[in-house]
Amino acid sequence: MAFYEKKLSRQDIYDGYIIHVHKDEVELPDGNTSFREIVDHHGGVCIVAVDSDGGVFTVRQFRYAYGREITEIPAGKLEAGEDPLDCAARELSEETGCTAEKIESLGVIYPTPGYASEVIHIYLATGLKRGESHLDEDEFLEAKKIPFKDLERMVLTGEINDAKTVVGVMRAKYVLGL
Amino acid sequence: MAFYEKKLSRQDIYDGYIIHVHKDEVELPDGNTSFREIVDHHGGVCIVAVDSDGGVFTVRQFRYAYGREITEIPAGKLEAGEDPLDCAARELSEETGCTAEKIESLGVIYPTPGYASEVIHIYLATGLKRGESHLDEDEFLEAKKIPFKDLERMVLTGEINDAKTVVGVMRAKYVLGL
Repeated sequence: MAFYEKKLSRQDIYDGYIIHVHKDEVELPDGNTSFREIVDHHGGVCIVAVDSDGGVFTVRQFRYAYGREITEIPAGKLEAGEDPLDCAARELSEETGCTAEKIESLGVIYPTPGYASEVIHIYLATGLKRGESHLDEDEFLEAKKIPFKDLERMVLTGEINDAKTVVGVMRAKYVLGL
Repeated sequence: MAFYEKKLSRQDIYDGYIIHVHKDEVELPDGNTSFREIVDHHGGVCIVAVDSDGGVFTVRQFRYAYGREITEIPAGKLEAGEDPLDCAARELSEETGCTAEKIESLGVIYPTPGYASEVIHIYLATGLKRGESHLDEDEFLEAKKIPFKDLERMVLTGEINDAKTVVGVMRAKYVLGL
């Protein structure tokens, strides 16, 4: 690889509940050295769940980092070693009460390659059956179905700005041929 | 706001060069308490630079967090207090050597609302004039133009997975009516 950066040393900074932070000294491609501050995270999943009426499940929740509520597709953190597909089925059920006949991969995204190693796995869920939602104890959100065409307009015009939601909706449109 | 989370206390964890980490105790909507681990970042910009031949400038660079090279649109970090539009023009020039007659906003994205406060501003640059690129001293990348239709296929099929690149390309397509 032309531009490889070699780790010279690592300073562990924070071993938290969902994030782990370290600062590495690296050798750059030209032989000089620099530092890279990195946030490690187990990764996550998100689900574009399309109902038989063409509506897509979204959730509205308070995001402390931004100090306000935003709209996203259902999502959650991977537990260590968990299969992303299992995680997607679990989060879909927890946040919307739905089970899906079919869950297929829409690939992954790298949300912030400059400083975080997180990978988010995106799934398309169809053949939905409604049940009861059952949220985590520190989770408060409102699930709402939005027609696909409206959601597409919202992610393209900036009414919805959550990265995984924009990517999920546009890849689902591509796969579904909408 | 129905789901507001109130800060009770803050523990500063790391005051780094590009990231700042803190852990807050919060009061949840039901009155219980929990913790939120938050990564603060000045934010960034990225640019969908479309040339007169329909090609879009991309950059390929080693991303230490993933341990490999990935393809992205030109991007960079905001300096404290910097206007995102000025930052976009600067990064476009640094990474591709181009100046643009017109730079317009494609809105913002929230890359990781679960734990980071970062906002990425997306711009569409047209009317490009070529010049000399001039990278930061710890920056090593290769700029390459990709035809718009090819890039669209790559972001939708998962050949390119950088979140800001997928969102930027799809919003540019929408605005340009492609």
